[in-house]
Amino acid sequence: MTFHARAVFPRGFHCASRNVGLKPEARDLTLFASDVDAVAAAVFTRNQFPGAPIILGRETLKGGVLRAIIANSKVSNVATGARGVENARRMAAAAAAELGTDAGRVLVSSTGVIGVQLPVEKIETGIRGMKADLQDDPLVGAEGIMTTDTHPKALSASVGNATITWVAKGSGMIEPNMATMLAYIFTDAAFDAATLDRLLRRAVHVSFNMLSVDTDTSTSDTCAIMANGLAGAVDEQAFLEVLTAGCVRMTEVLARDGEGAGHLLRISVREAASEHEARVVAKALVNSPLIKTMVHGADPNVGRILMAIGKCVDVTINTAATNAWVNGYQVVGHGARLEFDDAVVRAALGVEVVDLEVSLGAGTASARAYGCDLTKGYIDENAAYYSS
Amino acid sequence: MTFHARAVFPRGFHCASRNVGLKPEARDLTLFASDVDAVAAAVFTRNQFPGAPIILGRETLKGGVLRAIIANSKVSNVATGARGVENARRMAAAAAAELGTDAGRVLVSSTGVIGVQLPVEKIETGIRGMKADLQDDPLVGAEGIMTTDTHPKALSASVGNATITWVAKGSGMIEPNMATMLAYIFTDAAFDAATLDRLLRRAVHVSFNMLSVDTDTSTSDTCAIMANGLAGAVDEQAFLEVLTAGCVRMTEVLARDGEGAGHLLRISVREAASEHEARVVAKALVNSPLIKTMVHGADPNVGRILMAIGKCVDVTINTAATNAWVNGYQVVGHGARLEFDDAVVRAALGVEVVDLEVSLGAGTASARAYGCDLTKGYIDENAAYYSS
Repeated sequence: MTFHARAVFPRGFHCASRNVGLKPEARDLTLFASDVDAVAAAVFTRNQFPGAPIILGRETLKGGVLRAIIANSKVSNVATGARGVENARRMAAAAAAELGTDAGRVLVSSTGVIGVQLPVEKIETGIRGMKADLQDDPLVGAEGIMTTDTHPKALSASVGNATITWVAKGSGMIEPNMATMLAYIFTDAAFDAATLDRLLRRAVHVSFNMLSVDTDTSTSDTCAIMANGLAGAVDEQAFLEVLTAGCVRMTEVLARDGEGAGHLLRISVREAASEHEARVVAKALVNSPLIKTMVHGADPNVGRILMAIGKCVDVTINTAATNAWVNGYQVVGHGARLEFDDAVVRAALGVEVVDLEVSLGAGTASARAYGCDLTKGYIDENAAYYSS
Repeated sequence: MTFHARAVFPRGFHCASRNVGLKPEARDLTLFASDVDAVAAAVFTRNQFPGAPIILGRETLKGGVLRAIIANSKVSNVATGARGVENARRMAAAAAAELGTDAGRVLVSSTGVIGVQLPVEKIETGIRGMKADLQDDPLVGAEGIMTTDTHPKALSASVGNATITWVAKGSGMIEPNMATMLAYIFTDAAFDAATLDRLLRRAVHVSFNMLSVDTDTSTSDTCAIMANGLAGAVDEQAFLEVLTAGCVRMTEVLARDGEGAGHLLRISVREAASEHEARVVAKALVNSPLIKTMVHGADPNVGRILMAIGKCVDVTINTAATNAWVNGYQVVGHGARLEFDDAVVRAALGVEVVDLEVSLGAGTASARAYGCDLTKGYIDENAAYYSS
């Protein structure tokens, strides 16, 4: 499969975004809409203090049908109590009124500062007339949901007669169990709600749930899929393969654009005793500040790889059979650092995409995690996020 | 209890440090010695790729008796295979020969770069004559074991007729289950080995094991105690109290001097369902990059506190009864952010010691964790640690 050179929407999907005064000038309100009702599924953050839109969204998704998604940036509507949930409902109602549908068929997302009440009146006023702005370029929606992202993120690919389109934002507070990540997937393929939910969870398991920018788990994470059926049925296995490939690719795009990141860091763990243990080790490596700063500095301090594996104290590791490679160049063998040419490893760490592979010699399971290096840019972004 | 204004050794303990050529100029080899055999206990890293000195040290401590500790900086002798263990043995033998004791009564520590063979000949040559340098100032030893620490760390306090002295180093790759931390405790109180081991573990549980600079667990962590008995028996409970207080204080000193740190960050969690859950939440907060950068920037983005609590998905949280304070000023009530004066919270976050208190409304257990803010200094230290 290949992704389209420029992302397009499946049949019947459109989007619009505009500034409604939450931010000084940038687009801060985005609407995604289908011409017809779409079967829907979603995965939300596991954070125990979910934002009001998540609380409402879980209720909305019980219906299994969506007509639209409305998302704002700047204020996340989290830790805002009962008033926050009421404001999320008003936001859904405003979108429904604009589109002529039911508020129960509108998924709401908010992203931005935690703990500040949503200026919902600005959204209610600003959304008026937005239906007329609906257009066919997914990048318009991708731009509208950006926070600290440096570029809008949209992909699309074909599967049989149908199209799948991914629109997402990152880029900090990203760890498993969903990230501060909003990822919307649109398709004109036809599925029932239970199948769509199952396919989404399978794809998310190996993609967005293996993404970590900084170990922090957002209170707002949402990955939703809408399937409006306008292209009819497609082969389920082929759909799952393309769906998964697109989720993985979008995960890489989000990781590469992690706050302050200069490198995409991919960790592959093989020969683990179980998939769970492979995932634990992959996450430990992708989250290790000492691995992340090593990649940032292209500093061949590869002994840190063993440190990060070894700190997984509950994982089965055959230390004498543990090996590691940096972009294909072996640096650890039989659990010890190999003699190698520093310049070669430095060069391998210096490219934009750094693959660290680890084999644990303990079994046959594997996993892959996605992240980025840790730089001063991350600190710049987060030391004054609230105030800036 | 109060700590001595200037750290002193208990009766019969001395130290020396010098440069033996591992580093260009700084002291890189340190010897701690007791005039007589001392009962000993130690806690080592749980990392599954422990350094050669840890492998040897576990064997050495089985005897329960130490006469000396020899420690080098610059090279950690980790991931160095069988040759690394042999080099650690040679280092113990060299110290034993210099002091006229048995190599089985010498604990070896190494700290520095992972995966590089120890230049053991430099140590064997450089240690000669070091016995004559032994002196009574613990800071001489504290300086010798420094890596990226900005100052030497030693404390002492009295308990009855006895003295306890703590000498330690930090300051990165510090997470539970011991840190890249070498902490040596010397006392002239008399205890049997089993009692000493039990007391050490109790003190470490609430101090060094609740320290985290960066979530990475070193391969070299060691906390050892030597009790030479020259002051005779002391009250066990009084000893434990002073031992614990000194370990907590040293934990704070290490956290405050974490790589790049500008603030000591203390997290107190109350009303948890169990001590384990209190520790999990305290660690999640102290390790959260978004909490750490918030403190660095003194940015009152306190909704992140709820994010960091909530990401502990397996912990019992009464969300409607969750409260939080910044240096005594309440910022979260009933699970939502309170309205507050930004300038007050900014000021509370701006002082050197930042206490975040959280109550979970789920039980009666509590815990405290110790860490620091995340700054560009951490990245400077770690992006080129190997090469510099």
